[in-house]
Amino acid sequence: MAKKIAVIGGDMRQVAAARQLLKNEFDVHLFGFNKESLYKDAKLAQSAKDALSGAKIVLLGLPASDDYGINCEPSLSIKSFVSLLDEDAIVTGGKLSAALKKALDEKNVRYADYLEREEFAVLNAVPTAEGAIEIAMRHMPRTLNKMKCLVVGFGRIGKVLAKMLSGIGADVTCSARKCPDIAWIRAYGYTPVQTGDIAEMAHEYPLIFNTVPHMIFDEKVLKMVRGDALIIDLASSPGGVDFETAKKLGINVIWALALPGKASPESAGEIIADTVMNIINEI
Amino acid sequence: MAKKIAVIGGDMRQVAAARQLLKNEFDVHLFGFNKESLYKDAKLAQSAKDALSGAKIVLLGLPASDDYGINCEPSLSIKSFVSLLDEDAIVTGGKLSAALKKALDEKNVRYADYLEREEFAVLNAVPTAEGAIEIAMRHMPRTLNKMKCLVVGFGRIGKVLAKMLSGIGADVTCSARKCPDIAWIRAYGYTPVQTGDIAEMAHEYPLIFNTVPHMIFDEKVLKMVRGDALIIDLASSPGGVDFETAKKLGINVIWALALPGKASPESAGEIIADTVMNIINEI
Amino acid sequence: MAKKIAVIGGDMRQVAAARQLLKNEFDVHLFGFNKESLYKDAKLAQSAKDALSGAKIVLLGLPASDDYGINCEPSLSIKSFVSLLDEDAIVTGGKLSAALKKALDEKNVRYADYLEREEFAVLNAVPTAEGAIEIAMRHMPRTLNKMKCLVVGFGRIGKVLAKMLSGIGADVTCSARKCPDIAWIRAYGYTPVQTGDIAEMAHEYPLIFNTVPHMIFDEKVLKMVRGDALIIDLASSPGGVDFETAKKLGINVIWALALPGKASPESAGEIIADTVMNIINEI
Amino acid sequence: MAKKIAVIGGDMRQVAAARQLLKNEFDVHLFGFNKESLYKDAKLAQSAKDALSGAKIVLLGLPASDDYGINCEPSLSIKSFVSLLDEDAIVTGGKLSAALKKALDEKNVRYADYLEREEFAVLNAVPTAEGAIEIAMRHMPRTLNKMKCLVVGFGRIGKVLAKMLSGIGADVTCSARKCPDIAWIRAYGYTPVQTGDIAEMAHEYPLIFNTVPHMIFDEKVLKMVRGDALIIDLASSPGGVDFETAKKLGINVIWALALPGKASPESAGEIIADTVMNIINEI
Repeated sequence: MAKKIAVIGGDMRQVAAARQLLKNEFDVHLFGFNKESLYKDAKLAQSAKDALSGAKIVLLGLPASDDYGINCEPSLSIKSFVSLLDEDAIVTGGKLSAALKKALDEKNVRYADYLEREEFAVLNAVPTAEGAIEIAMRHMPRTLNKMKCLVVGFGRIGKVLAKMLSGIGADVTCSARKCPDIAWIRAYGYTPVQTGDIAEMAHEYPLIFNTVPHMIFDEKVLKMVRGDALIIDLASSPGGVDFETAKKLGINVIWALALPGKASPESAGEIIADTVMNIINEI
Repeated sequence: MAKKIAVIGGDMRQVAAARQLLKNEFDVHLFGFNKESLYKDAKLAQSAKDALSGAKIVLLGLPASDDYGINCEPSLSIKSFVSLLDEDAIVTGGKLSAALKKALDEKNVRYADYLEREEFAVLNAVPTAEGAIEIAMRHMPRTLNKMKCLVVGFGRIGKVLAKMLSGIGADVTCSARKCPDIAWIRAYGYTPVQTGDIAEMAHEYPLIFNTVPHMIFDEKVLKMVRGDALIIDLASSPGGVDFETAKKLGINVIWALALPGKASPESAGEIIADTVMNIINEI
Repeated sequence: MAKKIAVIGGDMRQVAAARQLLKNEFDVHLFGFNKESLYKDAKLAQSAKDALSGAKIVLLGLPASDDYGINCEPSLSIKSFVSLLDEDAIVTGGKLSAALKKALDEKNVRYADYLEREEFAVLNAVPTAEGAIEIAMRHMPRTLNKMKCLVVGFGRIGKVLAKMLSGIGADVTCSARKCPDIAWIRAYGYTPVQTGDIAEMAHEYPLIFNTVPHMIFDEKVLKMVRGDALIIDLASSPGGVDFETAKKLGINVIWALALPGKASPESAGEIIADTVMNIINEI
Repeated sequence: MAKKIAVIGGDMRQVAAARQLLKNEFDVHLFGFNKESLYKDAKLAQSAKDALSGAKIVLLGLPASDDYGINCEPSLSIKSFVSLLDEDAIVTGGKLSAALKKALDEKNVRYADYLEREEFAVLNAVPTAEGAIEIAMRHMPRTLNKMKCLVVGFGRIGKVLAKMLSGIGADVTCSARKCPDIAWIRAYGYTPVQTGDIAEMAHEYPLIFNTVPHMIFDEKVLKMVRGDALIIDLASSPGGVDFETAKKLGINVIWALALPGKASPESAGEIIADTVMNIINEI
């Protein structure tokens, strides 16, 4: 018999995750969604109790919870939620709040935050990179093909973004701080530059992507950026651009956060489902 | 001394072409544009006469003219325009009207339609493909990466579009009718399919691009397309999709025409400039 | 019942073609091969008569025949061969000799030379390009990755070779004569150069591939080539390099002909089988 | 004035490194090489003393030394070598022996083993991958284009090899053990497989590359490999294949070690030079 999974609250991503888990032959029950937003034949439970009863896996939204309740409409308090869980259930969600984790610990229920999984971050680099490219295409009056693009930071997003930009035919430069990363940039065929040397060549690039969550584009660097350049900042808070100064200098900056959920919610949901599958396999 | 070029009327593309020709060391004079839309230090002539006097090359817009006048604001009749031309000038533009060509023939002035140049069509496949990808990214709730895409027709746009989609990581199938084209599709690493066999596998593709200006997606084929699919028709009039039937079946179709000028006017303008350079070199 | 195909003489390519046709559910009989060179369970006929009797398709080698006989061991005269054919058989082979064609015409037997098929030439560009890359890798004391390579001619082999070199990470320049080809080179992301201008930048390239069957590398051009460069000439006779002068100048030139059969006989054989399938489908 | 570097002993790689360091504007003196193997205008010292006197950087071969002496012809004992060093010299080489390190420590001379640098390993993945591809091309009677290839291990060599194979048009599967690596394989567009599951699909691959220095291809896995497959083992000693069993089963295995120095000595030398530059910059 198929294992029961409860999907409680969230957005389009959780709906897509639910559908993907259904394809993986789980018995998927949902609670906390509008019927209209669901796929055909989705099992929408009448109550949290119906959804959770007998569920071996419980998937929550992103974020999963705050201090008081689950991210869910109609509302569901942490207390009620935990009381409805099977003892051998496994709870997973994104950004589980301290309050939720405490309550789960007290009941001795196992849990895992998918946001902390490395493969989740790797897989999300793909919709992030695509979302960034879509933004660039929308705002630039030129083709990315042949355009000199600078990608600051050669971490997960930098790697995938550089590959896609190169795949469209852009002329890609990547920056990094450490020798091995510079070596990787060369091995992958992009032009390498030390992140510390960006100011010197910033004026060559009409399109710049920042992926480093530190102040890279401070006043000194921004003054070297072309006036008609577009900077797309993909770094999580506090970002890597001095937005105030950029505004004063008239440089166009777009701070693009949470692109997977915005640009590709279905793919983002499937990535959640894949990560949940890994969590299940490991426990 | 730098050769004089007059750029008379048009849109952002002609402005970009003018700037590119300036980089190629021509003495570029413009007429029929708003000062605000021009680049810094552009030479905006007070009159058509000032612009055209002594100009060895005259670049018109796209379209260049209609039955009565040049595509230009303030208006400029064909008669006035031709009367102002040097006898050894070369006139080039897109879609030169019959009336304009007749008047040029009468004055024995040489002309060339850049729209009829093969390299112009090849180079424009790049902004067209990028524009199509931007549309697909904006409308699909999934990443193009890993998506099964069908490109119908392996001509200029088909070739460039397939390459870019593949560069983003899409799973690309291309259709063609003739054996050599099927062989090229294989040699380039895409999945080949006979255009006549599309109906049989159309349901596999959530994203379909048509590049063939014949009725490919008729009722029979459309009935095999997935309800949640997006069809982007890039074929010039009359297009390749039965739009009425698609609407009835609830299939999302976007007829995307003239993408270079819309999505990448600066690149489109540089392509015009490059083509003009070829025309100049050959005459 | 499966259609009978006779495969008469040739080399490893015909054996591979036979095996591929067997996979396509033909009843394949061979004659004129060593048992040792065949695949398991191959049907090796005792005589040409046994092989040809009732065969609807007859596949010959490359070359298929000369003035007197079929390219086959033991020998088989054209007269004997034709006398053994079914009247409704279709004969195909590479470089059918005039004598063979005459004899087939007299008996009113249909035939087709697969060497004259455009898709055959396109598909063979792949093993040719790979063979050329293997030669370059073997002879160069450096990686092709990052190497500046010049590909002269942007026809079938030039296109596939440029794509593969670029896929390995080489820095690829392609030459062509015509504007549309130059446009294609740019659209595909390689550096374009006019074939007529090669002399000016030849010294930049340690590795040069010629695909043009005209004298491109004459004394004037060769004098501009680096002394440590390798030229791989892929052009069919008379080739595109003045071999005498190259020798005098100490430039390393390799004239690499018929690479598909030498470097990848199995792939070359499958290409023959695929082409034969197209011939069958069209007749 | 240019800083003096002494290059003492080794092979073609050290000669190439010397030439590269010369381009970087060092004053390069060599000792322990045949004049014939050197580049034009190389400064070949008459004695180790001449080469080492005043040298701020000393580059040794790979390996640099054994228990008694430097890897150099004519012979040079560790004692003599160290006695000739400037006190502020920096010694670098590959696999510095314990005896050499001890002697350098006693004289208080700084040293660094370039073999231990991460960027050295990353950059060498490129000539290693190319060397492996050259071997595969030479031994396979088919094109790598379209061939199903399995790359076991997604470390440095696996990543670069997969990219190059894919660039030639091969159909690439990569194996890894950990979830994040599997995610990377997917993000880069290859087919992922768990290394532990290789036995199940090994029969699909005519070409297998191993990069994991553990026993992966034991009897159980080898029995699932096709009889006509080629396994290229790139793993350092003890390798990842049970060579005995493979031989019994008639499977073709090539254990390819030290490919950079063998297949691309000049590129390998430049990688040494680049690594030495990093060492100099950091000290």
